[in-house]
Amino acid sequence: MGSEMTKKYVFSFEEGDWRDKKLLGGKGASLAQMVQLGLPVPPGFTITTEACRDFYSYEEETIEKLVKELERGPPPDIRDKLIGEVWKIVDRLPVPEGLFEQVKVYVKKLEEKSGKIFGDPNKPLLVSVRSGAAVSMPGMMDTVLNLGLNDEVVKGLARLTNNEWFAYDAYRRFLQMFGRIVLGIKEELFDEVFKEIKSKYGVKYDVEVPVEGLKEAVERFKHVIQREWGSFPQDPWVQLELAVKAVFRSWMNPRAIFYRMANKISKKEADCTAVNVVAMVFGNMGWDSGTGVLFTRDVANGENRPYGEFLPNAQGEDVVAGIRTPMPLDKLKEMMPQIYDELIKASKVLERLNKDVQDIEFTIEKGKLYFLQNRDAKMTPLARVKTAVDLVMDGILTKEEALLKVKPEHIVSLLYPRIDPKYKGKPIAKGLGASPGAVSGQVVFHPDVAVEWARNGKKVILVRVETKPDDVHGFYAAVGVLTSRGGMTSHAAVVARAIGKSAVVGAEAISINYDNKEFRVGDLVVREGEWITIDGTSGDVYVGKIPTVEPELISEVNVLLGWADEVRKLGVRANADVPEDAVLARKFGAEGIGLLRIERMFRKPERLNLLRKVILAENVEERVKYLEPLAEMIKKDFKEILEIMDGLPVIIRLIDPPLHEFLPAPEEILKELYESKIKGVDDAALKEFEWLYNRISKLKEHNPMMGHRGVRVGVTYPEFYYYLTKSMVEATAELIKEGKNPILEIMIPQVALASEIKYVKEKAILPAIKDVESRYGISLLNKLKIGTMIETVRACLTADEIAKEVDFFSYGTNDLTQATFSFSRDDIEGKFLPQYIESGVLMYNPFETLDDKGVAKLIEIGTKLGKSSNQQLEVGICGEHGGDPKSIEILHRIGLDYVSASPYRVVVARLAAAHAAIKYKSIS
Amino acid sequence: MGSEMTKKYVFSFEEGDWRDKKLLGGKGASLAQMVQLGLPVPPGFTITTEACRDFYSYEEETIEKLVKELERGPPPDIRDKLIGEVWKIVDRLPVPEGLFEQVKVYVKKLEEKSGKIFGDPNKPLLVSVRSGAAVSMPGMMDTVLNLGLNDEVVKGLARLTNNEWFAYDAYRRFLQMFGRIVLGIKEELFDEVFKEIKSKYGVKYDVEVPVEGLKEAVERFKHVIQREWGSFPQDPWVQLELAVKAVFRSWMNPRAIFYRMANKISKKEADCTAVNVVAMVFGNMGWDSGTGVLFTRDVANGENRPYGEFLPNAQGEDVVAGIRTPMPLDKLKEMMPQIYDELIKASKVLERLNKDVQDIEFTIEKGKLYFLQNRDAKMTPLARVKTAVDLVMDGILTKEEALLKVKPEHIVSLLYPRIDPKYKGKPIAKGLGASPGAVSGQVVFHPDVAVEWARNGKKVILVRVETKPDDVHGFYAAVGVLTSRGGMTSHAAVVARAIGKSAVVGAEAISINYDNKEFRVGDLVVREGEWITIDGTSGDVYVGKIPTVEPELISEVNVLLGWADEVRKLGVRANADVPEDAVLARKFGAEGIGLLRIERMFRKPERLNLLRKVILAENVEERVKYLEPLAEMIKKDFKEILEIMDGLPVIIRLIDPPLHEFLPAPEEILKELYESKIKGVDDAALKEFEWLYNRISKLKEHNPMMGHRGVRVGVTYPEFYYYLTKSMVEATAELIKEGKNPILEIMIPQVALASEIKYVKEKAILPAIKDVESRYGISLLNKLKIGTMIETVRACLTADEIAKEVDFFSYGTNDLTQATFSFSRDDIEGKFLPQYIESGVLMYNPFETLDDKGVAKLIEIGTKLGKSSNQQLEVGICGEHGGDPKSIEILHRIGLDYVSASPYRVVVARLAAAHAAIKYKSIS
Repeated sequence: MGSEMTKKYVFSFEEGDWRDKKLLGGKGASLAQMVQLGLPVPPGFTITTEACRDFYSYEEETIEKLVKELERGPPPDIRDKLIGEVWKIVDRLPVPEGLFEQVKVYVKKLEEKSGKIFGDPNKPLLVSVRSGAAVSMPGMMDTVLNLGLNDEVVKGLARLTNNEWFAYDAYRRFLQMFGRIVLGIKEELFDEVFKEIKSKYGVKYDVEVPVEGLKEAVERFKHVIQREWGSFPQDPWVQLELAVKAVFRSWMNPRAIFYRMANKISKKEADCTAVNVVAMVFGNMGWDSGTGVLFTRDVANGENRPYGEFLPNAQGEDVVAGIRTPMPLDKLKEMMPQIYDELIKASKVLERLNKDVQDIEFTIEKGKLYFLQNRDAKMTPLARVKTAVDLVMDGILTKEEALLKVKPEHIVSLLYPRIDPKYKGKPIAKGLGASPGAVSGQVVFHPDVAVEWARNGKKVILVRVETKPDDVHGFYAAVGVLTSRGGMTSHAAVVARAIGKSAVVGAEAISINYDNKEFRVGDLVVREGEWITIDGTSGDVYVGKIPTVEPELISEVNVLLGWADEVRKLGVRANADVPEDAVLARKFGAEGIGLLRIERMFRKPERLNLLRKVILAENVEERVKYLEPLAEMIKKDFKEILEIMDGLPVIIRLIDPPLHEFLPAPEEILKELYESKIKGVDDAALKEFEWLYNRISKLKEHNPMMGHRGVRVGVTYPEFYYYLTKSMVEATAELIKEGKNPILEIMIPQVALASEIKYVKEKAILPAIKDVESRYGISLLNKLKIGTMIETVRACLTADEIAKEVDFFSYGTNDLTQATFSFSRDDIEGKFLPQYIESGVLMYNPFETLDDKGVAKLIEIGTKLGKSSNQQLEVGICGEHGGDPKSIEILHRIGLDYVSASPYRVVVARLAAAHAAIKYKSIS
Repeated sequence: MGSEMTKKYVFSFEEGDWRDKKLLGGKGASLAQMVQLGLPVPPGFTITTEACRDFYSYEEETIEKLVKELERGPPPDIRDKLIGEVWKIVDRLPVPEGLFEQVKVYVKKLEEKSGKIFGDPNKPLLVSVRSGAAVSMPGMMDTVLNLGLNDEVVKGLARLTNNEWFAYDAYRRFLQMFGRIVLGIKEELFDEVFKEIKSKYGVKYDVEVPVEGLKEAVERFKHVIQREWGSFPQDPWVQLELAVKAVFRSWMNPRAIFYRMANKISKKEADCTAVNVVAMVFGNMGWDSGTGVLFTRDVANGENRPYGEFLPNAQGEDVVAGIRTPMPLDKLKEMMPQIYDELIKASKVLERLNKDVQDIEFTIEKGKLYFLQNRDAKMTPLARVKTAVDLVMDGILTKEEALLKVKPEHIVSLLYPRIDPKYKGKPIAKGLGASPGAVSGQVVFHPDVAVEWARNGKKVILVRVETKPDDVHGFYAAVGVLTSRGGMTSHAAVVARAIGKSAVVGAEAISINYDNKEFRVGDLVVREGEWITIDGTSGDVYVGKIPTVEPELISEVNVLLGWADEVRKLGVRANADVPEDAVLARKFGAEGIGLLRIERMFRKPERLNLLRKVILAENVEERVKYLEPLAEMIKKDFKEILEIMDGLPVIIRLIDPPLHEFLPAPEEILKELYESKIKGVDDAALKEFEWLYNRISKLKEHNPMMGHRGVRVGVTYPEFYYYLTKSMVEATAELIKEGKNPILEIMIPQVALASEIKYVKEKAILPAIKDVESRYGISLLNKLKIGTMIETVRACLTADEIAKEVDFFSYGTNDLTQATFSFSRDDIEGKFLPQYIESGVLMYNPFETLDDKGVAKLIEIGTKLGKSSNQQLEVGICGEHGGDPKSIEILHRIGLDYVSASPYRVVVARLAAAHAAIKYKSIS
């Protein structure tokens, strides 16, 4: 080694800074930490992530381009081609200058520490070569064990261990692993050979193969390698170089790429993998040896008790092979109480130091304990919440740290139905949990069938290889969707999330045969009409109608949310249209109702009939005739909701949607008209139909979302807004008379001009309030607020003028997103939006997550202008983005006063708002 | 008078600064100017506009509120009530402190100058009291003549003039005028009395009434005044005070308010009126006396020769009374050659000094010429253009001054059909020219009849008292609209302008009887079906089918536009879709085509059929099958247009509108389907219908303007954009091969994301160009531009990203206005927009004139961002606002490179752009 220019690529566990995960990777850092804490760890060293980055730097651009293509999730044939290209390039890459000189130095140190020599049959040093990135990506990258074995060393090992079977078993495993991982030879080629050997010796399990069989396997494996790649490298140094390169390369294998994509791991968080070279220790050296895993707490439910598994006289792989069932950790306590104590004591130290539940791998070699790895444990959302709170109680975490441990999505998943935890059955397949919630339904394979069956009241799950825009009607009909192909951004995943259906995608174990109307998982056949259950959170697929349970929030959730409430700056309200919603809103801790849509109150038939008459009326008198009783009816609902929310603000929105939405479609009427003609009904009835058809056709609009709706209805029919206002203000007055404390906030929708607000205030809202004031003999105007929904672009751009007319703004980000993109949500979500996302033209659905570059800019402009001309102005948001964590962070940054979300998302919003506050506190 | 605090409210004609029109009013300034030039003017003085303003200042706020109400054009009963309130307030107002002390001083000076005494029967001084604001408002405010007469003075006047008839005629006229204007007594009361007297003496004309009759009239008029107001003020000083107040008050009469509104005269331009008190001179003192008007040039056609009328032995009023026909000015030359010479000489001086054609009033009293007023002449648009150019040729105006003399609307009006100037008939009525163009049609009174008749191929003019939203279908069916009520912002005016129909509104002489299906003007009756002609430019209404002529541009127009081209910064292109448009575009001086919409090329049946097949195709192969021949067909058109525009850029827009616009409506198909069922057609045909109905229904969108259109079609069906691009690029290649110089610019519409452009460039546009390049063996990419239409809000907000992908931006302000307001143009223009404008919620139609606060802000943001990331970026606009002068000024200010307008509006745009450049040059 040596020129001044050469970087330091290698650190022994003693010298690495264990806080520097980005350089050493998670595994390397954990090993350094344990060594430096004085815990027993097999000697070893770490090749840094920087070495890996430098390795890739020669072809960075080309590779990035290929990765981008891969990220789009192309069909399998193209995917394989792309992977082939990546590997071809990587194979040609030289290792960074000076790296192997440094590795040699550190192998020498390893030899000194262990007293063994690399490649020396008399005291052979065997090593494992393990990947380890800054962010844990379990199972995604490659590891090679027992490296250093060759034809000579195996003999020495047999001698030294006095166990020829052990030595040759290790050698044949090494050849297979090295062949597959390092040399890229198909695993089947080794499996076939070993199957032949087993049948030759008439045995069923691997462990029953006699030494002769293992030796034969070694020879034949070497032949396979010879044929597929070239002569097996006997030189351990060559083995090591190839293995290190293979680990580097595994950073770019498709599994790893997709994992990073699905988990949104950015380059900033983890860029390339480190490589750990560790002296092998063996848990299969007798009954004083063994291997196991320890979690410091229960990762399923969060209980504070050590939890794990142990297998005596075994290596990690044996657990995987599934011939022996691991024992619960208590067994170790019985068998080796001292080692158990040592393990538990160390685990508590690591938990406190690393401030999280730990997942520790260990091996015992001839009565000596070795720690092989520790990392923060992956947990169920339930355990995640409980342990976060407990760790605060134990003085390990601060409240803010605990809040950051729990992602808003964890809370979300606690809100969906899930598989009954008492259910012990196994899933038949596993895919990606693309859209959460556990649902059961009968299998159908065609969207049209889904529609037909659903119409007959059946619950169905649509099962497809993959889906395309033409299948979307099936999504609406089904309770859930299952595909055998595709990732988190596939059409099925995107659409299912968009319309709120459970979905499991890319369950590759499932093989579908449309012609036979069945799918298979191995030998299992599931036919059309059979029940299955999918869990869109975990990605699990079960046969049958598996019991699911409604979410029940553990008390720790409320403790945590209480902390969130202390930290967050954003208020959180709920969108609620009916009394039941209001009850939920209070239950979930909403600080008011941010949006009450009157529209949903018109669903009852007698109300809808009156409303239709109002809409079809041809003059003011007629409209008023129907408005009066209608206002009286909905007053009861207003009163009930205001009472439930007593003491908290309730924003009621004056009628917003295009009026024709409450009318039957003209085509339906036309059909009825013709059917009646064919049937032959009397002339009067026909005339009535014709009148209705003409009237409705006249009201029909080309682009109703931009037509006669919202405040425009208030300007053209002030009587409409007058009666609605009167109704809600009367409800308020009556409650005040009853000694209650209702807080009404009246919201005017679809405003584009300050003058629209002036006009409807003057012509409808203020007269209605005055009327109620005089009839009830109380002053009300000073007790309520009048505000506007900001959902047109122009309202944002002229917010200073508008703010002078109102007490509050509430952004309607659904309509604002529509207007900013000129995307009609109704028309594009099932049509070109999925294709936009699949092709990468759009990175996410802007109706789910606030568009930071466009819509958020407008909100920022509007808020700044609004507050500039009205310092008292209260600014919130009531679009669906109010429940989306990423959007909430943006809204916190902009400085809104509150968000409003559907009742179930209120808890998400509380936590996300706290996260945003903590994040921006640390920035500023 | 006297305290130091008192303002100087009065200026004699000798001392006033004639350049200060704002202080002295137009008339006062002109009198001062003439006096100071040494021209003979009757002695007099001016009470300043400041005095009038101070007069109103006591009740400024209340009055302004009432005026706002009046400006909204309320129904007559409310209007009268409001006017009553204004007058009540004004009546109570005191005149500003010190004003009348100053007036007295100046009357004394007048007495000294004239040698006559105010109120002295022996040498009576009579005066006229005339209004005069900074901006000429002819006939809108009040004037009182012969003030100073009373029972004694009249006798002296009779003695002095030796003409008792003259004296008593003057007195009875004064009583009537004073009674009506100053005291607010209804004119009919005087008229009735005088009618009785005429019948008593058995005479027909006023001049035939003998002196006794006049004396009787004087007595009875005084009685009328006594009864209606109180004793007639014999004191001339009281008369003067009342008259000055009356002139002040007339600033607020409804005529004046509406005039200012219609002509958009702001407070900045003219705030209150001045009052001129001038010694009376009499043109009716014998055959050496007379009165007349002189225009320095012909105000009808602009010819450079003096033009005017003269009436010997007469006062101005006699001309109005219509008993004697005035003579052409040449007669004066014959009769009084010296006076004629003096007049002409002075007029030329005034023209040169005031830099415009002059309109001069004069009176000759006993062989002595007096100038009573001069002002800039009102002219026809034709004369306006011709004289502006001639005045430059004469060295009177600079080119820039000449440009500013001509308003873009003048040029517009030269472009519409107009009444044949050779036609000598008189209009039967006159209203406001609300939407330009002269058209003939048969009278109908109901919109439904209009639709029915139009369907039968008739040309109809819809005649209504006023219109409302329910009548709009009639507007579309008619060639023009005539109403008897309403102003320039009435529903009829707004809608007619919006959809480009000629309209005359508020023709109050017309009395409509819907029941009898007729209208009357006096005794004339016009029945349904009779032909009338309306001139929407002048507001004239004629009976019969009057010959109209297509516009022919005089050579001066081109001279003027040539000067405009020298001055303007904005380029001007034309929107042209077919070869004929392109020819017009070149003729009108367009510097290229700013927008070619492919859509109009699909109107021919065989092309439309192919396009429909493309749209209904269910897969790529099918689409390509029909796209190939379609692209071949439109290539011919592209080639023709590119050849016409040889050497100038031609922007061709890739297909933009929602695809279903090219398909029949589903309801139509449904109707046909049912009708066929009822008729009984064969099953195959029925199936075909059903397939078509289902397919079209599937393509139908809820909000097509925000649906699957524009670049979204390019992303989902790249083959569509590929073939369109190929077609236009091939046309270019072929022309290049022929030695021509075609300049093609390809425009991508409806972009919201930079990635959309990247995608269609990569998948469609660039491959198509490469294909043509290789087949034709020439390089093309460097010869053409690729740009985008900026018509979504998001494109404006992210213009920096988008600009990196393109060579040019072209704002589509129609769609951008839609998106900014969330107003669907299709749905609102005939529906709530008129009501918005009538109620004052909107001040103008944002689809006609760019919304300065919203849409213009976005254009500004977009342009700034775009040019920041791409300095070469060319930025234009192709929405309809490109032809609107106010919008053009805004676009100049923002710094666009060019505007594009329909071919006829190109000339308007050239002039408006020059105006903007001059205006902003003088500001900066």
